Amino acid sequence: MSASIPSGLQLLLTALDLTGTFVFALSGAVAAAKRGLDVFGILVLSIVAATTGGITRDVLIGAIPPVTLVDWRYLAISILAGILTFYWLPVIDRLRSPVQLFDAAGLAMFAVSGAHKALAYGLEPPMAALLGMLTGIGGGMARDIMLTEIPGVLRAELYAVAALAGAGVVAFGDSLGLPPTATTLTGLVICLGLRLGSIYLGWHLPKARPSRSTRVDDNPK
Amino acid sequence: MSASIPSGLQLLLTALDLTGTFVFALSGAVAAAKRGLDVFGILVLSIVAATTGGITRDVLIGAIPPVTLVDWRYLAISILAGILTFYWLPVIDRLRSPVQLFDAAGLAMFAVSGAHKALAYGLEPPMAALLGMLTGIGGGMARDIMLTEIPGVLRAELYAVAALAGAGVVAFGDSLGLPPTATTLTGLVICLGLRLGSIYLGWHLPKARPSRSTRVDDNPK
Amino acid sequence: MSASIPSGLQLLLTALDLTGTFVFALSGAVAAAKRGLDVFGILVLSIVAATTGGITRDVLIGAIPPVTLVDWRYLAISILAGILTFYWLPVIDRLRSPVQLFDAAGLAMFAVSGAHKALAYGLEPPMAALLGMLTGIGGGMARDIMLTEIPGVLRAELYAVAALAGAGVVAFGDSLGLPPTATTLTGLVICLGLRLGSIYLGWHLPKARPSRSTRVDDNPK
Repeated sequence: MSASIPSGLQLLLTALDLTGTFVFALSGAVAAAKRGLDVFGILVLSIVAATTGGITRDVLIGAIPPVTLVDWRYLAISILAGILTFYWLPVIDRLRSPVQLFDAAGLAMFAVSGAHKALAYGLEPPMAALLGMLTGIGGGMARDIMLTEIPGVLRAELYAVAALAGAGVVAFGDSLGLPPTATTLTGLVICLGLRLGSIYLGWHLPKARPSRSTRVDDNPK
Repeated sequence: MSASIPSGLQLLLTALDLTGTFVFALSGAVAAAKRGLDVFGILVLSIVAATTGGITRDVLIGAIPPVTLVDWRYLAISILAGILTFYWLPVIDRLRSPVQLFDAAGLAMFAVSGAHKALAYGLEPPMAALLGMLTGIGGGMARDIMLTEIPGVLRAELYAVAALAGAGVVAFGDSLGLPPTATTLTGLVICLGLRLGSIYLGWHLPKARPSRSTRVDDNPK
Repeated sequence: MSASIPSGLQLLLTALDLTGTFVFALSGAVAAAKRGLDVFGILVLSIVAATTGGITRDVLIGAIPPVTLVDWRYLAISILAGILTFYWLPVIDRLRSPVQLFDAAGLAMFAVSGAHKALAYGLEPPMAALLGMLTGIGGGMARDIMLTEIPGVLRAELYAVAALAGAGVVAFGDSLGLPPTATTLTGLVICLGLRLGSIYLGWHLPKARPSRSTRVDDNPK
């Protein structure tokens, strides 16, 4: 990241990035294992889920080569999560909806760290919020598309909107001159709160009122 | 875009780009609404359909960060199209095959503006034509893949070929020294004409003659 | 590629790259033809399967614009493969599982040439191995995702692991100072050997032991 980030915040962001990598990798590994893929399929999906969001962000802001390809810790953590899942799937699976839980935590961490990195590369606050959202949702989207499922981001209640809210707190807090550590923690709590509220309390957004002539399956596969 | 584009043409290209963004966003929003997604799923798919082609183009020619991430109008227009669709889906849906119509208009606009931008960044005419085609087909491809459908570009009659023809007129007209506004309009008409001819008049390309041993579903999912 | 590659090796790598392009394009064209797509759908899938791996590699290492967009031979070879498939599908199809065979050859060629190019752009050996693997698996992944199939890389026995082994031989051979032509050929043989052993002899990796409460279809579409 750019030198414009103070070192204490930088430490927090790196910790968030690496933890987010771990939980997203778990979400990819569990999804792959449940579909009956072999150990390497599990590792590929761990890596894809954990790194796609950050790689996309880095390509779009011009941080080439992406940090995931120069800092070996991202890859090592993704592989570790895949191996843990391979050996302890029954344990991990005892958690209620583990894919969703890991995914929610990764979403929050990547959204706020992505927004910070975009700001550090000179993007305007609204675009930094958008890029934070994209960093958060990219990994889960890639995971679902590779398993030929409609990405959860399109179906799940309060998914992208939670990422956007968390990233937005960071981006607009920055332009208001608020202390970045405070906005980072607030962004994390808001994103995670919205997402968990949606999973456990059923919070949701309204759907479009279908016209009489429109059936849900009007575009058959 | 580069300073090598005269300002009158630049104005035309920006107008095409923004209108293309609007119609592609409508195509994404209508497709999402018909699959029963909520308002944020609709917005995500509006943005994906409207911006993927241009972002891919900009990444490939080195225009970083992509114009979609620095010019707020692209995002605002995509969101506007999503909101309009959310509230007026029954009205929009009364048009015959609205996804296809909006998609055809966006295809033509993005193909010619994409070819111009690739030329301005120094690509050779054949590659500028290809990149114009990619700009045109990228958004629809991303939209269909996210809804786990085989992209229309692979199924639809005269889809990518229409985009290639429109972008090719711009690219080769440029190397022949023809006036760019004229080639732009000609490219638009040719692309749109081929695509509408295919939708309404059934124009199509031949299919491969299947061997006796080959069934269409030979590669089961 | 960078000037740090000696011209004899460069010739070998370009030959591998172009041959890999041809066989991957065949794999895309055959897959498209078997799904009943028209001639342009076949061409699009030829180009996608042949170029996605290399374009992704070039974007990630900062080789912009990607070689596929400036060297016309890649595109010409992809289109040639598509046209050959269109006219001679019954002949090509008489080979046993032609998609898999072409895919295996392309995988090996792209994995070693991708690792070399990443080294030339200054990446560390472990990351060059990873990027070689990504170059190898990218085209097949894009082909399968566009046909809404779960990518073979996630299902097939010894697929990504074969690419990683081949690319790893090149990357670590380089840091040990071994002659690059020898490591290139060794990497090719190892990747192709692992993949063909998997296709014809059933070599495979273990699967995760499912928990009692986990059904394969636990994540319904």
